[in-house]
Amino acid sequence: MPNDESFQQAIGFIAYIDQLKGVIRKNGLFDGSRPENTAEHSWHAALSAQLLAPFANEPVDADRVSKMLLIHDLIEIEAGDTFAYDPEARATQAAIEEQAADIVFGLIPGPEQKELRALWDEFEARQTPDAKFAKSIDRFLPLFSNYQNEGFSWLPNNVSKEQVVEVCWIIQEGSQTLWTLTEQMLDDGVSRGWLKP
Amino acid sequence: MPNDESFQQAIGFIAYIDQLKGVIRKNGLFDGSRPENTAEHSWHAALSAQLLAPFANEPVDADRVSKMLLIHDLIEIEAGDTFAYDPEARATQAAIEEQAADIVFGLIPGPEQKELRALWDEFEARQTPDAKFAKSIDRFLPLFSNYQNEGFSWLPNNVSKEQVVEVCWIIQEGSQTLWTLTEQMLDDGVSRGWLKP
Repeated sequence: MPNDESFQQAIGFIAYIDQLKGVIRKNGLFDGSRPENTAEHSWHAALSAQLLAPFANEPVDADRVSKMLLIHDLIEIEAGDTFAYDPEARATQAAIEEQAADIVFGLIPGPEQKELRALWDEFEARQTPDAKFAKSIDRFLPLFSNYQNEGFSWLPNNVSKEQVVEVCWIIQEGSQTLWTLTEQMLDDGVSRGWLKP
Repeated sequence: MPNDESFQQAIGFIAYIDQLKGVIRKNGLFDGSRPENTAEHSWHAALSAQLLAPFANEPVDADRVSKMLLIHDLIEIEAGDTFAYDPEARATQAAIEEQAADIVFGLIPGPEQKELRALWDEFEARQTPDAKFAKSIDRFLPLFSNYQNEGFSWLPNNVSKEQVVEVCWIIQEGSQTLWTLTEQMLDDGVSRGWLKP
């Protein structure tokens, strides 16, 4: 019934998470027309999991990885997006995101609260095959977009190949295939002048 | 291996679907700041399925409904978005979307092609509990956004309660709870002047 408290809470949460569409990231759409927001990135990542699951290092539950990627950036409603190549921001990122997670997941009613929070913790811990693979996709997509739109966020921020490797080497933990492609893209990006050597 | 044909096809499909972020809908974000695009709508719908599954009329597989909602509007890359309250466009919509589905799903490699196409066909046919519930969410969200942003797409298009009911009555096939809330929102929307009686 609509007066049911957990139903009202679920409806309130659905309105709350609409704000993720307003969290703007540094990287752009593949056509370079504008920066991406975190809601559409989350969709892209969740669907990419379905397509790339056959190329994970270990067997993964693709539907579970999709769900993990649907929720992986909800904390940005409270914490904002942290640019991967901003070392100062990244130093305090984990603590800030942990606090944000308490707020965000605390708004979810019923048993879904524990389930989705545990899924986010698993994603962040990067220990299970599903989490390693989800992280691979999350790190691969912004790099892939930079490769497609000729360095939309690399060029204005003077990003070097070394910096990308420092952030993105974990792609190989989830998918060696994706990592081999990543290395090709980075080398090509350097030779085309979109990425510093 | 990156040279594997189906891997290359998957990567190409991931680049292709980025275009869904550029398909602009009539309804707005909940804060009314801008129109929504179909990629972020798909994310919102897929995650809402996780929250609302306990309120479906029949037991549903929430992860499967999420996956259905991740892909339900991919055809808009080829067919564009059809405004729910444009009767002319809706008359030809089914045939156009069927053709678009052949193109879009035809680009997916491996067994995922058949699986995801079948999932879209199931969604459109609205016969299974999962599909009925997925359609409920898909119809509920634009209406909920109009209720939150005071008629962002209702007012400029002179939409009436009767028109919304004609398009949205199927919400009750998936969730009677959601339908009861819908009716409350529509009545309230009329009394506040966001929706014509």
